[in-house]
Amino acid sequence: MNNSKSDNNTQSTSQMANPQWGGRFSGGPAAIMGEINASIAFDKQLWRQDIQGSLAHAAMLCKVGLLTKEEENDIRKGLGEIAADIEAGRFEFSEALEDIHMNIESRLSDKIGEAGKRLHTARSRNDQVATDFRLWVREAIDGIIEQTKSLMLCLARQALAYHNVPMPGFTHLQVAQPVTFGHHLLAYVEMLKRDVSRLEDTRKRLNECPLGSAALAGTSFPIDRHMTAELLGFDRPTANSLDAVSDRDFALEFLSALSIQAMHLSRLAEEIVQWASAAFNFISLSDGFTTGSSIMPQKRNPDAAELVRAKIGRITGDFIGLLTVMKGLPLAYAKDTQEDKEPVFDATRAMTLSLAAMEGMIRDLKPHEQRMRELAGAGFSTATDLADWLVRELRLPFRTAHHITGKLVSLAEAKNCDLADLSLEEMQTVEPHINETVFSVLTVEASLSSRTSVGGTAPQNVKAQAEHWLSHLSSKG
Amino acid sequence: MNNSKSDNNTQSTSQMANPQWGGRFSGGPAAIMGEINASIAFDKQLWRQDIQGSLAHAAMLCKVGLLTKEEENDIRKGLGEIAADIEAGRFEFSEALEDIHMNIESRLSDKIGEAGKRLHTARSRNDQVATDFRLWVREAIDGIIEQTKSLMLCLARQALAYHNVPMPGFTHLQVAQPVTFGHHLLAYVEMLKRDVSRLEDTRKRLNECPLGSAALAGTSFPIDRHMTAELLGFDRPTANSLDAVSDRDFALEFLSALSIQAMHLSRLAEEIVQWASAAFNFISLSDGFTTGSSIMPQKRNPDAAELVRAKIGRITGDFIGLLTVMKGLPLAYAKDTQEDKEPVFDATRAMTLSLAAMEGMIRDLKPHEQRMRELAGAGFSTATDLADWLVRELRLPFRTAHHITGKLVSLAEAKNCDLADLSLEEMQTVEPHINETVFSVLTVEASLSSRTSVGGTAPQNVKAQAEHWLSHLSSKG
Amino acid sequence: MNNSKSDNNTQSTSQMANPQWGGRFSGGPAAIMGEINASIAFDKQLWRQDIQGSLAHAAMLCKVGLLTKEEENDIRKGLGEIAADIEAGRFEFSEALEDIHMNIESRLSDKIGEAGKRLHTARSRNDQVATDFRLWVREAIDGIIEQTKSLMLCLARQALAYHNVPMPGFTHLQVAQPVTFGHHLLAYVEMLKRDVSRLEDTRKRLNECPLGSAALAGTSFPIDRHMTAELLGFDRPTANSLDAVSDRDFALEFLSALSIQAMHLSRLAEEIVQWASAAFNFISLSDGFTTGSSIMPQKRNPDAAELVRAKIGRITGDFIGLLTVMKGLPLAYAKDTQEDKEPVFDATRAMTLSLAAMEGMIRDLKPHEQRMRELAGAGFSTATDLADWLVRELRLPFRTAHHITGKLVSLAEAKNCDLADLSLEEMQTVEPHINETVFSVLTVEASLSSRTSVGGTAPQNVKAQAEHWLSHLSSKG
Amino acid sequence: MNNSKSDNNTQSTSQMANPQWGGRFSGGPAAIMGEINASIAFDKQLWRQDIQGSLAHAAMLCKVGLLTKEEENDIRKGLGEIAADIEAGRFEFSEALEDIHMNIESRLSDKIGEAGKRLHTARSRNDQVATDFRLWVREAIDGIIEQTKSLMLCLARQALAYHNVPMPGFTHLQVAQPVTFGHHLLAYVEMLKRDVSRLEDTRKRLNECPLGSAALAGTSFPIDRHMTAELLGFDRPTANSLDAVSDRDFALEFLSALSIQAMHLSRLAEEIVQWASAAFNFISLSDGFTTGSSIMPQKRNPDAAELVRAKIGRITGDFIGLLTVMKGLPLAYAKDTQEDKEPVFDATRAMTLSLAAMEGMIRDLKPHEQRMRELAGAGFSTATDLADWLVRELRLPFRTAHHITGKLVSLAEAKNCDLADLSLEEMQTVEPHINETVFSVLTVEASLSSRTSVGGTAPQNVKAQAEHWLSHLSSKG
Repeated sequence: MNNSKSDNNTQSTSQMANPQWGGRFSGGPAAIMGEINASIAFDKQLWRQDIQGSLAHAAMLCKVGLLTKEEENDIRKGLGEIAADIEAGRFEFSEALEDIHMNIESRLSDKIGEAGKRLHTARSRNDQVATDFRLWVREAIDGIIEQTKSLMLCLARQALAYHNVPMPGFTHLQVAQPVTFGHHLLAYVEMLKRDVSRLEDTRKRLNECPLGSAALAGTSFPIDRHMTAELLGFDRPTANSLDAVSDRDFALEFLSALSIQAMHLSRLAEEIVQWASAAFNFISLSDGFTTGSSIMPQKRNPDAAELVRAKIGRITGDFIGLLTVMKGLPLAYAKDTQEDKEPVFDATRAMTLSLAAMEGMIRDLKPHEQRMRELAGAGFSTATDLADWLVRELRLPFRTAHHITGKLVSLAEAKNCDLADLSLEEMQTVEPHINETVFSVLTVEASLSSRTSVGGTAPQNVKAQAEHWLSHLSSKG
Repeated sequence: MNNSKSDNNTQSTSQMANPQWGGRFSGGPAAIMGEINASIAFDKQLWRQDIQGSLAHAAMLCKVGLLTKEEENDIRKGLGEIAADIEAGRFEFSEALEDIHMNIESRLSDKIGEAGKRLHTARSRNDQVATDFRLWVREAIDGIIEQTKSLMLCLARQALAYHNVPMPGFTHLQVAQPVTFGHHLLAYVEMLKRDVSRLEDTRKRLNECPLGSAALAGTSFPIDRHMTAELLGFDRPTANSLDAVSDRDFALEFLSALSIQAMHLSRLAEEIVQWASAAFNFISLSDGFTTGSSIMPQKRNPDAAELVRAKIGRITGDFIGLLTVMKGLPLAYAKDTQEDKEPVFDATRAMTLSLAAMEGMIRDLKPHEQRMRELAGAGFSTATDLADWLVRELRLPFRTAHHITGKLVSLAEAKNCDLADLSLEEMQTVEPHINETVFSVLTVEASLSSRTSVGGTAPQNVKAQAEHWLSHLSSKG
Repeated sequence: MNNSKSDNNTQSTSQMANPQWGGRFSGGPAAIMGEINASIAFDKQLWRQDIQGSLAHAAMLCKVGLLTKEEENDIRKGLGEIAADIEAGRFEFSEALEDIHMNIESRLSDKIGEAGKRLHTARSRNDQVATDFRLWVREAIDGIIEQTKSLMLCLARQALAYHNVPMPGFTHLQVAQPVTFGHHLLAYVEMLKRDVSRLEDTRKRLNECPLGSAALAGTSFPIDRHMTAELLGFDRPTANSLDAVSDRDFALEFLSALSIQAMHLSRLAEEIVQWASAAFNFISLSDGFTTGSSIMPQKRNPDAAELVRAKIGRITGDFIGLLTVMKGLPLAYAKDTQEDKEPVFDATRAMTLSLAAMEGMIRDLKPHEQRMRELAGAGFSTATDLADWLVRELRLPFRTAHHITGKLVSLAEAKNCDLADLSLEEMQTVEPHINETVFSVLTVEASLSSRTSVGGTAPQNVKAQAEHWLSHLSSKG
Repeated sequence: MNNSKSDNNTQSTSQMANPQWGGRFSGGPAAIMGEINASIAFDKQLWRQDIQGSLAHAAMLCKVGLLTKEEENDIRKGLGEIAADIEAGRFEFSEALEDIHMNIESRLSDKIGEAGKRLHTARSRNDQVATDFRLWVREAIDGIIEQTKSLMLCLARQALAYHNVPMPGFTHLQVAQPVTFGHHLLAYVEMLKRDVSRLEDTRKRLNECPLGSAALAGTSFPIDRHMTAELLGFDRPTANSLDAVSDRDFALEFLSALSIQAMHLSRLAEEIVQWASAAFNFISLSDGFTTGSSIMPQKRNPDAAELVRAKIGRITGDFIGLLTVMKGLPLAYAKDTQEDKEPVFDATRAMTLSLAAMEGMIRDLKPHEQRMRELAGAGFSTATDLADWLVRELRLPFRTAHHITGKLVSLAEAKNCDLADLSLEEMQTVEPHINETVFSVLTVEASLSSRTSVGGTAPQNVKAQAEHWLSHLSSKG
């Protein structure tokens, strides 16, 4: 994929090399205008979509009698050759022709003459670019959904493998209650599930075809917009020509969905960085997704996790950037909207890389079960289990049970021991009705296995949930 | 509605009055911590939702045997009294009790004693606030959808009224082709349609119940999460307890949807400001949504439109603000998420006001049909109609037809007349095959009525589309 | 301080209580317009500045003969009474009068009659609000600078106290090299130093007086703008009347400076949260800035740190919000700019709270020196010291030295010992020229004390730097 | 200049062409990690700065005895050859070597052997990249300041040329009072003046040298950081090594300054788009900065202005992106900060292009003086002059004068004439003391020439101010 915010052609590189900053525009208006106005440097990424759109348009023009069958054949053949040229790297893009649409149309006319000049009947660059870009975004959505599901599958597999491995559940990064590592990983599957769902909704809303809106007002030619829509896999043509050429909601919604997804990945990446630290020491990462040090061969820097954590920055910036561009724009088409593509290309690339790197890291990571287990039991993490026991067995009100538990924790702290190490007699000095059965809830394992409420961390829950996801995701494959 | 980012209590006002900036925290840690930590100043807005959630929780606890029927009745009665007190402004909120949940629970215990202390069984503030806030956002979504549909209806009515009133269609704010005012207004109906659809999807995804996730790990009590979910109108309980207490996607997605919607309103508001200017002079706004000048009684400043145009700023800021808060947060609960409510309250208020003001402006505005008509015909705006005629009637290739049209426009410009004012002979000097029938496409009206492609601006299209919306929205309303 | 994004008056609260969302605007256009247009709910915070500005304006009008001395006296007396009323909470603000300027001017006319009506000569609300708001922001800057210096002082004191306490220096959150806790704290003093410097520059650029620019074009009255500027502590009058009434750079620059500062605080807050975790266990926080648990009395949740970490969200949102408002606004005054105050009030309050809370946390925190020391020596953290020794003593090229060190680290790892625990013979198997003196660089203390380069972590450096700051900040204080 | 967010190498282009989205990472971890981790694709832009930094470092190492003179000479020669190779496009950058620093160092070692391996003594990539990037940003600041001053000069020239050409001064885009076109243009000179000042402050704060901070803790080598700082044009070395390697304030402050500047340009661009519309018809733009239409040869689309208007989007996005990256990062170095360069390169390019295009547009634009003059007098735009006359000549209170003026405007409106067309008798029916001299203030020219207050629009003011700027900017230039 090729998703830069701007192209690096040789000319501009050599201009950069020029130490006189002002000197770069010595070419005058033409040089400046060429550089600010032309979009071919980045919109050449739309070449497949542009050709796809033109093929559909030509087929429709032929059907309604605006092209002869022969003309359509010429166009089809010409575009096929152009596609082959671009694919093979033989196509020379021209900045003078400004954008991908004119580059291809111009070459087509060179190749096949008059028929090429007829292709632009009943369309304009305004509806053409709107169509091409929707096609591109639709593919990007499909690709990211596929990758996201793949990451979900990977997380679910690890969740199954570690469904009963204890780890501390944190609030405020303080040890609060034991959970299982599998349960923790499945929390991210839930987040990614929503991400997929958001992308699916975005795709559904995007899937209307602007082609045939012409410059802004529709056209007097007897075109069949339903046919082009169908040929391009759209659900229907757009309903208002002014809206169709000026709307960039699909790009914005896509970027906002990616922003939220990138936030999820930033959380998981942050946890990976923490877990891999010497202080936590919860996991080992594989060599593939860490960098080493020439001097400390044992060292593994979680570079990939840090980069994934950071990607939310650019993705959010891309969303805000395009939203700012669209603020207050009068209808219908304005050149401002040319700024729509680079942020989308950039965010797509960032998300694609992030998902791939995250999947690799998750697949390869090894939990340090003993260390996790140890910290899971620290800090009187089963105190709530004790309180719940008091509520359940002695039918104390919740707040009262909490008060008593607090006293027992203080007692254990004073004795520098765990709750389970207090004797029954000691406990009864605080609450006389406590009996032997209390000890059955004070271990990490007891705590875990008791939390069988829907969505709770009991290993059997986690196993079932992981299996549900594995089955669900595999069947969709 | 009461949606401030922070509360204005008397104490802090008097502190503001203190000219010594540093002096305000002379109260020491307690004063600082009270002010930064307590959320009651803004989360008291959740009181209805908090009581609603507690009623459902109590009903469920009773059903599964964790409360007696009598206890549940006490709770129900106590919460009813508290609701009446708050509604009547008799409830004193305490900062020392930090948040709405503790304020209400504490009052309940004061009122009904032990049963009140039992209410918190099998829940924690973490799942409670997640539930309350989802309920609040769900109501906000419903309210904004209702308002948005009302604005759509208003636009559709005006579109029907002006379905055949010509106005210039702009590209680059340059006159490009004639459209109708109704067509232009319907473009915004399309945008708002997508806004409604996005909010509906957000609501659907939000509609899972976190209650019963407890602090973060689920609970060992035999609760029935399906029951509470159903009582509160949720589709199902959330599937992972760690995710349930740390997820704020619903708030983020809501804010991102509002950001895009605010962008749409900013575009319409910008157009209203331009249209109401002396230079455009396209519309009159009513006194209700403008401000006057003591010195120029005839003057009407489009203040409401300007404020609507500006609201995208704060709404976008609210989205970015919360997204930034969530970046990189480890699971499960972190206090950072307390920053979730104020942006949502603020954005909801801004959108609610914007929609109400926009509907009022649209309902009252009067187009200056003559001025619009005049500019619709300026700048050779039917040149594309001429080119299309050449393609259609003479079967010239599109690019060739454009070239000829350019020559004819130059001719008219040189003669300082409109295209329709050229004689047939003059036209034939450029293209000998042009015949009399060409004149039938050169008027604004002819141009408009010819654009009958799906989504085109032909008045009959616009009328049908406006009627479709009126029927669609009324039947739903 | 009183910095909400919108005010909570009783009316709007009761409207919120109304379950029919749409019902709240049943009052029609007047109700909507009142709520969206009036700014008194938040701009009443400018009352001191408004009175200050009017006093200066009156003095100037008197000097140039546009007011008699008697009129000026009446104005001065009237405004003094109004100030006293507001301070005492006796002033009733009216939404019908829209903003603070009209509220005060109207009351003044009620009080003193004709002279009050003359006060508005040669000014307009446009230059008045620009002046008032600059005065407010200037005070906010001064307050935040003062607080920031106070935090720097606090950090420098702790840095001095712990200038030689070892802690691990991290890269990628991996243990890299030993540093001292004092050195780490002083890094934040450097960041805050830049924050202060940025605020000082903002203040300098802000300090021009718009008063007398009138509505937008200047005035024909013979006013003395230099005099009002001087009376209000400005360096000079603004140079262009159109710019003066439409410029909000000072607010934007202030918000951008706060955004960067909030980022610094978010980093320190993140570290505090990590350090206070069981995994790190580097510090204890005081009760004053943590919250406890009714059930786990020993637990201290770092709520204040989490909230400080989160504040960057709203502050950044405030900046982006106002910048978005200003995008593309034509000159001169537009109502959009009314959206300037709430973000500034909100961000100021957030920063003020954050600085106070951070200072309290830093003042009270206790490092766990033994745990820090222990981790400072983990992971072969003196490997670079060994490599540097090879370069310095054996004059090996840097890259070669690194290679040899890597082999020695591997050797130690294989033997499960520290570098210092290798025997000289073992070392010489890797590099025969190594001699006894190498052991002098392999301890944490040796590593620390050797790093005496400017800005390095050697305890003597840190002590000197901390003393420099203490002396520098105290002398200014 | 070459400022893309990511590089477009042939490999990734062909991957893009691959219809199987997931297929692109079939290369496994190495392919993913290579693509996400390596920065050479964009940081090769730092090659000049990297070499510059290495030359200074080598000179210092030589001076303090860590390199021999011969070694330094070898390094100097080797780096010179590398620079020549890069400049000539002969240098092959390797992704395997990750970044520009390793690419250059590795080539140097190939070229000169051992001396090359010694160059990295007492530095690390962490302080090296911090230094290189500061140098790059410093040059970018210098370049943008130069361009900005050039635009100011251009605006001042036009302001002088049109210092007495009337145009309407707008509030709320409504005609309010006459101003001159020159006055309007000078408002932007004021904004740009602040932009320059902000950049100068950013440069001043940036100008400290991180080199010698080593990885994070300083170094034990006896380096002379003052010498390297001086050689590289920095004011001093940075004061804390941890801060030095983790600080990116200079990039953030630069981006925030550009964001505010881009906002100014967006306002001027918006005005140009409006002025060039048929409705306003205030100006003609030149062919160089507009695009035409093949069909409407007379049409000039203000594409360059629209693109400048839009650039605020990406620049703001770049700022927010990097700020988000930095949120909550623990000290010292984290890989996240690798995301610092692309936004800075992108924003620099966008600003550079915007300034060049804006200067070209301003230089070439032609005002339509008659149309501007006409609208300047519309809407009773001299009503405030009349009110001021009543205050000044009849000594009426300001509010009373406004009331009377309102009545006179109503009278003129009812008669469908201008204020100046009312007879004295008609005026005296409203206020009997009005006399003949009132007519001297009712014309556009009288209004303009009366506004002589500091910063006012009187042509003599504007002329003087324009001349001040011309002299000021030329002398500096």
